[in-house]
Amino acid sequence: MRNFEFYNPTKIVFGANTIAKLADLVPATAKVLILYGGNSAKTTGTLDEVKAALGTRVVMEFAGIEPNPSYETMMQAVELVRREKLDFLLAVGGGSVIDGTKFVAAAVGFDGEPWEIMQKRGRNVKSALPFGTVLTLPATGSEMNSGGVIMRKSTHEKFSFMNRLVFPQFSILDPSKTYTLPKTQIANGIADAFVHTIEQYLTFPVQALPQDRFAEGLLQSLIEIAPQAMSMEPDYDNRANLMWVATLALNGLIGAGVPQDWATHMIGHEITALYGIDHARTLALVLPSVLNVQREQKRAKLLQYAERVWHITDGSEEQRIDAAIVRTREFFESLGIKTRLSEYQLGEESILAILAQLEAHGMTALGEHQDVTLERTRVILQQAL
Amino acid sequence: MRNFEFYNPTKIVFGANTIAKLADLVPATAKVLILYGGNSAKTTGTLDEVKAALGTRVVMEFAGIEPNPSYETMMQAVELVRREKLDFLLAVGGGSVIDGTKFVAAAVGFDGEPWEIMQKRGRNVKSALPFGTVLTLPATGSEMNSGGVIMRKSTHEKFSFMNRLVFPQFSILDPSKTYTLPKTQIANGIADAFVHTIEQYLTFPVQALPQDRFAEGLLQSLIEIAPQAMSMEPDYDNRANLMWVATLALNGLIGAGVPQDWATHMIGHEITALYGIDHARTLALVLPSVLNVQREQKRAKLLQYAERVWHITDGSEEQRIDAAIVRTREFFESLGIKTRLSEYQLGEESILAILAQLEAHGMTALGEHQDVTLERTRVILQQAL
Repeated sequence: MRNFEFYNPTKIVFGANTIAKLADLVPATAKVLILYGGNSAKTTGTLDEVKAALGTRVVMEFAGIEPNPSYETMMQAVELVRREKLDFLLAVGGGSVIDGTKFVAAAVGFDGEPWEIMQKRGRNVKSALPFGTVLTLPATGSEMNSGGVIMRKSTHEKFSFMNRLVFPQFSILDPSKTYTLPKTQIANGIADAFVHTIEQYLTFPVQALPQDRFAEGLLQSLIEIAPQAMSMEPDYDNRANLMWVATLALNGLIGAGVPQDWATHMIGHEITALYGIDHARTLALVLPSVLNVQREQKRAKLLQYAERVWHITDGSEEQRIDAAIVRTREFFESLGIKTRLSEYQLGEESILAILAQLEAHGMTALGEHQDVTLERTRVILQQAL
Repeated sequence: MRNFEFYNPTKIVFGANTIAKLADLVPATAKVLILYGGNSAKTTGTLDEVKAALGTRVVMEFAGIEPNPSYETMMQAVELVRREKLDFLLAVGGGSVIDGTKFVAAAVGFDGEPWEIMQKRGRNVKSALPFGTVLTLPATGSEMNSGGVIMRKSTHEKFSFMNRLVFPQFSILDPSKTYTLPKTQIANGIADAFVHTIEQYLTFPVQALPQDRFAEGLLQSLIEIAPQAMSMEPDYDNRANLMWVATLALNGLIGAGVPQDWATHMIGHEITALYGIDHARTLALVLPSVLNVQREQKRAKLLQYAERVWHITDGSEEQRIDAAIVRTREFFESLGIKTRLSEYQLGEESILAILAQLEAHGMTALGEHQDVTLERTRVILQQAL
């Protein structure tokens, strides 16, 4: 096991009918900005419930945060907070709203042009407004970590940042708030949590027994959750498991003390930035090819993954690895998620564009061994056609 | 899944050669009391390493905390802290030293007779001194939770308490600091972590998929760790896994959103208080009989435990449950831990004494269904003879 530090002070308030607890969780004298995305927060009644719980506190709203939150949009919120001297942020939504809120929290008091936060990946954040979240879309884990991803529309750049000052103070996770989500978003959430887990698990062995078991447990849970999530009317326990699994997949726990990959995410971010494909769906495009191209480096863990997650024990090593990659691809497809660039009408020319973006952003040595060069990414993308 | 709150702000600093980080973790102006147990902190050099890292800070020492920390001893530390106006506590040791330190942290500013903290199980704690820990004995999980157990020698009472103000600010977990431990203490640590996990897992199903998978992962890890831990010279990765598993077994994570049992612990505490048997060893005396006597209430989870943890799939339900209980007993015995009261020369008369203590402490309705009455505990203990 590698040395590590683990710190996660976010308080999770989990379960049905927990939004009312905002009355105690938000300071009584706070001047609050509620941040959210589209109309669904309104039409589902969640926003009204939030405002009722906040009672007589000063409350303003900022709507219209996009699925991939943009610098341009979030800077409008920064200006509103500064102008109105608000002192507490409350994100109501999914990972995009929460990521955007983290950026606002860090940017409000930032000394300089806030885009520098993204350019330095958050290392230059010295203070942040306190904030909480009300999660309505299980997927990214942003509700219990200190990272975020922001896109700059004008330059097609999409960067992640991280700083311990942007852990949410609390996150309310009410599974019944996910009932109105379209199935495509549930599918995205399952795929996102699955790949988050894989990026921290499917590398090389470092004798980290509980981390491996926990990661395998999350993958097995997602495989168990998926059919019911995709076929049935919303079921409370099914949604509760999805919500908690997605949070656990990226709260720092399974990644503590082990190597991490993240090549799939870095390549996927460029696909979203260039072609607007949902984040989770870009991961399903890239991951199967990453596993195939990196099969030598990942051999031991691929075999462990095949056996413990998919119960594949017959055949040669190559056959078991092939079978595990096929099962991974089929899992995404079972969620109605495409796993081929060609299904999005993207061909060789898109590969050149993605590679150019990766090069421009210094993403030329990805993965747990930093051996996923541009040349290797080209092979990965060609296998994903 | 049940509604839950999860909050754990303790920072974990894990790995070899991490004690030096105390220089940054403890406030520069702190007046520190180092609390420890016997001579081993001195003879192993750990205490010197700790003091070197603390540099020029004001540092005092309090030695002699017993394996089951007593109110009488810890009150001496309380008086020392008050007299010398110390403002930061640093526990160097295992669960007993950390539990004792938590009591001191809560007692120093307590308004009233500090034993009232134990009588109210910590609910009446309004403030606590900040403290950190340097863990040298993996077992209890106290390094990453907000609970503790204190014994009052004069009355043979042993109570647990809990309050969110007594989370350690940080805990340093250096697996190499466990190399000098006797094998009996390693065995106790494995057994303690195993039973902590079982108490939060082996109850009844509530559709909590990741909690079940995580608990099973910890049990499987302990089963994998045990033979090497007991037979070989200390191995870094083996000890690292034991240390992190023991922490994860009782940091609130696997118990969030699920029913919990704790009957085995409550009965075990009385055995320790009466006969001085190591905490972990009392658990091994009680657990197999609890599982047998409660097999109807625990049937579904016993079958899941048999299959997922012990890979028992053949035979009738009763046979599989019997086999899982036998494997549990054999696991303790493989650690050199006795599982029968008679092996400690305890007979029927001890059962009467234990029952009398349980009755005196109101422990008359234990377990996840609160159906472990004194009469049922009598049967449990009779089966443990």
